[in-house]
Amino acid sequence: MSKGLPKRSEDYSLWYNELVKRADLAENSAVRGCMVIKPYGYSIWEKMQAQLDKMFKETGHSNAYFPLFIPKSFLSKEASHVEGFAKECAVVTHYRLKNSDDGKSVIVDPDAKLEEELIVRPTSETVIWSTYKNWIQSYRDLPLLVNQWANVVRWEMRTRLFLRTTEFLWQEGHTAHATRQEAIDETVQMLNVYATFAETFMALPVVKGVKSANERFAGAEDTYCIEAMMQDGKALQAGTSHFLGQNFAKAFDVKFATKEGGLEHVWGTSWGVSTRLMGALIMAHSDDNGLVLPPKLAPIQVVIVPIYKTDEEFDKIANKANEITKKLLTKGVSVHFDKRDTHKPGWKFAEYELKGVPLRIAMGPRDLENNTIEVARRDTLSKETVDLAQIQIEDYVTEMLDKIQETIYQKAFDFRKEMTTEVNTWDEFLDKIESKGGFLSAHWDGTSETEEKIKELTKATIRCIPLDQNEEQGNCILTGNPSSGRVLFARAY
Amino acid sequence: MSKGLPKRSEDYSLWYNELVKRADLAENSAVRGCMVIKPYGYSIWEKMQAQLDKMFKETGHSNAYFPLFIPKSFLSKEASHVEGFAKECAVVTHYRLKNSDDGKSVIVDPDAKLEEELIVRPTSETVIWSTYKNWIQSYRDLPLLVNQWANVVRWEMRTRLFLRTTEFLWQEGHTAHATRQEAIDETVQMLNVYATFAETFMALPVVKGVKSANERFAGAEDTYCIEAMMQDGKALQAGTSHFLGQNFAKAFDVKFATKEGGLEHVWGTSWGVSTRLMGALIMAHSDDNGLVLPPKLAPIQVVIVPIYKTDEEFDKIANKANEITKKLLTKGVSVHFDKRDTHKPGWKFAEYELKGVPLRIAMGPRDLENNTIEVARRDTLSKETVDLAQIQIEDYVTEMLDKIQETIYQKAFDFRKEMTTEVNTWDEFLDKIESKGGFLSAHWDGTSETEEKIKELTKATIRCIPLDQNEEQGNCILTGNPSSGRVLFARAY
Repeated sequence: MSKGLPKRSEDYSLWYNELVKRADLAENSAVRGCMVIKPYGYSIWEKMQAQLDKMFKETGHSNAYFPLFIPKSFLSKEASHVEGFAKECAVVTHYRLKNSDDGKSVIVDPDAKLEEELIVRPTSETVIWSTYKNWIQSYRDLPLLVNQWANVVRWEMRTRLFLRTTEFLWQEGHTAHATRQEAIDETVQMLNVYATFAETFMALPVVKGVKSANERFAGAEDTYCIEAMMQDGKALQAGTSHFLGQNFAKAFDVKFATKEGGLEHVWGTSWGVSTRLMGALIMAHSDDNGLVLPPKLAPIQVVIVPIYKTDEEFDKIANKANEITKKLLTKGVSVHFDKRDTHKPGWKFAEYELKGVPLRIAMGPRDLENNTIEVARRDTLSKETVDLAQIQIEDYVTEMLDKIQETIYQKAFDFRKEMTTEVNTWDEFLDKIESKGGFLSAHWDGTSETEEKIKELTKATIRCIPLDQNEEQGNCILTGNPSSGRVLFARAY
Repeated sequence: MSKGLPKRSEDYSLWYNELVKRADLAENSAVRGCMVIKPYGYSIWEKMQAQLDKMFKETGHSNAYFPLFIPKSFLSKEASHVEGFAKECAVVTHYRLKNSDDGKSVIVDPDAKLEEELIVRPTSETVIWSTYKNWIQSYRDLPLLVNQWANVVRWEMRTRLFLRTTEFLWQEGHTAHATRQEAIDETVQMLNVYATFAETFMALPVVKGVKSANERFAGAEDTYCIEAMMQDGKALQAGTSHFLGQNFAKAFDVKFATKEGGLEHVWGTSWGVSTRLMGALIMAHSDDNGLVLPPKLAPIQVVIVPIYKTDEEFDKIANKANEITKKLLTKGVSVHFDKRDTHKPGWKFAEYELKGVPLRIAMGPRDLENNTIEVARRDTLSKETVDLAQIQIEDYVTEMLDKIQETIYQKAFDFRKEMTTEVNTWDEFLDKIESKGGFLSAHWDGTSETEEKIKELTKATIRCIPLDQNEEQGNCILTGNPSSGRVLFARAY
C-alpha cells in the first residue's frame, strides 16, 4: 500500500517531491519559489523549533525580533556580504498601489517611490549589527546572546520544497563578544548544539567540520557546518555557525570600552538552521511507503486503528483504546485514536505509513477476546501481537519508541559509514563519485583553484574539513601537491 | 526611583514611548516605521504567543505557513479588500541588485524586473483562499481550521512602537465551513477566546462587540472585536474576528460538494491579534515608576535581591535564596536571583520596578538573623516583612501572585467602569468627550453619515455595538433619529 509513490530507486527526486506533497508536508504556492507549509508538515517544524529553542535558552540566549526590511545601503557596508547576497534579493521600491486611469486595474503608484530601496532580509547581520551599535558600550554589555525566529528571502532560480525555496523559515543567532576566543567558543558551542539536535532528535548522524574559503558565509572569517548524507548519496548541509571576526563590528562601528579602559571592536558570531532541516529529515529516513519519522519529532507517535463490523464491537474497542490512551498520556506519549467510519482500516494503515507515524496499534474483535493488540513499527514494517496481560502498555510503548529512535539513527549511521570512502587517486575519485556517490575522503592542496577545478570536472564540492580527524600527510588528489589532511568531497543539495 | 520617566499626568504619550524604550521592550529601527522588539519585550510576547497558541489548539486549530508575498492580481480579486489595503502596501518590483557602472555603489538591476509585482502581505486572506481552492473539494474537507503566526506589513505614515508599526507580528486564523451558521459560530468562538485571553492573562477587561460598517474589515460581512480602555481615556481595539461570508470563496472560486450532492461556495472566517497587544498591556496597567505586568505574563515573576556588605553575608543570603528558588520552581514560579555585584540594591529595586516584576524579595543580614524576608508588590508598591517560619514560601508566593493578578484586573475593571458614561444629549457628548474621554454609551441612528459626522466633530468613533446589552429605544445623539440600542463611542488608538 504505497499510495502510488514513485520508488526511490527509480527516481529519487520525483519520490521526494511526491512524498512531500502526498504526506501533507508542503506544496508549491502560486508565488514563484515560495512554498505553503501544510499543517502536518508545520507540526513537525514546530517540534523542531520547540526543541532548538529550548537548547538555545539553556545556552543563555534570548529571542528578539528585528525588521524584515534592510536599507540597501546597509547591505553594502560589508563588502563580501553584499557580494554574496546582491544577486538574489527581493527589492521593495514602492509603498502604494492605485487604480489605473481607466479604472480597470490596480497598478503601482509611481508617486509612491521610496527614496532608498529596501531589501527583504536574506539574513539579518546588517540590520542587527546596526542595532548592536546602540546596545553595546562597555564590556558589561557583553556577551550579547540573541536569537531570532524569522522568515528570510533569497531569490533562488531553481527551487525545491524545503531544500531551496525563495522564502524560508529559520532561526538566526547573532552574538557579540569581548574577545576573539570567546566568539570562537560560541561558534563551536552552537555547532555542537546543532549536531546534538540532529543526532538526538532527528536521528541524523552528521559530520562536524569547517568550510573551505569557497563555501564560507559572505562576511565570515570561518564557517563551521554539520553535513549529513542522504539516501541517494548526496550530502546536505544541515546547519552553519559562523565566526564573523570583527567584520560586522567594523562595518557598523560597534566598539566597547574594555575593563582596562581601552576601546575595541567587538567580536561576532552568527548561526542558523532552517526549514531545510525538514528536507534532510524526510530524505534521510523515509522509504517507498512514505515518511519515516523519528519518534522524538513525530507529531503523532502512536495511532490506534479499530477494526470492527458492528457498533457493539466498536464500542468495546473504543473503551479499550481510551484506556490505553490514558495510560500513554501519563508518559507524555502523543497518541491518536482514529475512529473515523468514513475510511477502512487498510486505507488508514497506508495513510499512517505515508505520514510516518512510528507505532501503529490495531485492535479487532479477536484482540478483544484475547486481550491482545497488534503492534506495527513504521521503521522496520514489522508486526507483533502483544498480550496486554504480560506488559505495562505505557512502558512497552515508551521503550519501543526509544528503540525505534535508536534503530533509525543506527540505520542512517551505518548507511553513512558505507557511503564514506577513502580515495587516494584521481581515477578512484572519478570512479567512486560516479558509481557510488557519498562522501569521498581525499587529500586536497588547500587552494580554491583546485577546489573549483574538481567541482567543474565532477560536480563534487568540499563539504567540510572534518573537525575530528588526525593530521595526515598526503598528496592532493588532483594536483599531487602536498596536503596535511583529508577533506570530505561530495555532490550536495 | 522612577529612572526619570515622564509622568502620565503630564504627557501620557511621552510616558508611553519612554517606558517602552527604557524597560527594554522595543525601539525604533533604522528602517522607517519598523521596530526592533528587544529580548525583554519579546519574552513577554512569547508568553502571550504560547498561551494563545494553546487556546487555538484546544479549539481544534492547526498552524501552517503561507507565503510572505502576494501577487498584485490576487489582492485585486476581492473588491473591497484591495480598496482597504492598496494605499498602504510594500511592493516588490525587482529581484536583484548590481554594481553601478562606476563601481562605486550598488543599484537595483533594471534587468531584474518582475513580470508581476509582489505585495508584502498586509494580511493573508487572498493567498490563503487561493490555496484553499485546492484543499477543499467535499464536505469531508470541512471545517478547515488553520492559524498562522507571521509578520505582516502595512505602510503606516504615523507609527508608534507596538501600537502602529509598518511591520508587526501577529497570528491570523483562516477557517472554512460548510454553513453560514457554523462560520458565524466560529467567529464568535474566537472572539471569546480573545476575550478570555485578555481578561484572564492580560488582566485586561474588554467589551465584546460588533463593528459598524465603517470600521469593518475590508472583505468581511461582519467584524467582531474586543475593545479595551487605556489610562488616558482612549480606547484600544485589542483583537478582531471576521465573518467573511462567502466573499473570499467567491473571489477565489472555492466550492465544495455537499453531503446532498450539491456544489456550494464555502463560508469563511478570519481572526487576529498582534504585537499591538503589547501596547495594550503596557498602557492599561503601568504607572509612573514603570511597567506593571500581570504575573501570568511576566517573564520574571519573582526577583530576589540580596543586601549585604561582606562576602560571608552574601554567601549566607545566596544559600537562603537558592533554597527559596528551589521551592518556588516546584510550583512553576519563574524566579531570578540577582547576584550582580556591579549594581547596588537601590538601583536594582528601581530596575525591577521599571521592568514590572510582580514580586520582589529582599534579604539583608537582619533578615538572616530573624529568618525573615521583605516582600514588595509591584502593583500596589506595598511592602511587608514575612517570617519564614510562619509560612510555606511556595504557597505564600503563588497565592500572592494570584492576588496580584486579580488586583490588577480589578483596578482596570473599576477604571473602565468609571470611564464609561451614558450620555443622552449632544452637549453632554461634547462635554464628556473633551473633559473626561472614556467610553460614551449613546444612541446612534445607524447611518455611516452620522458616524462620520461625529468623528469629524469630536474625533470619536464607534468602537463597537456591544454584544451583551439589552435593546433600548432612543434617539440618535446627533440627529435625533430613532435608534434601537446604544453603541460605544470613544477616541481610540
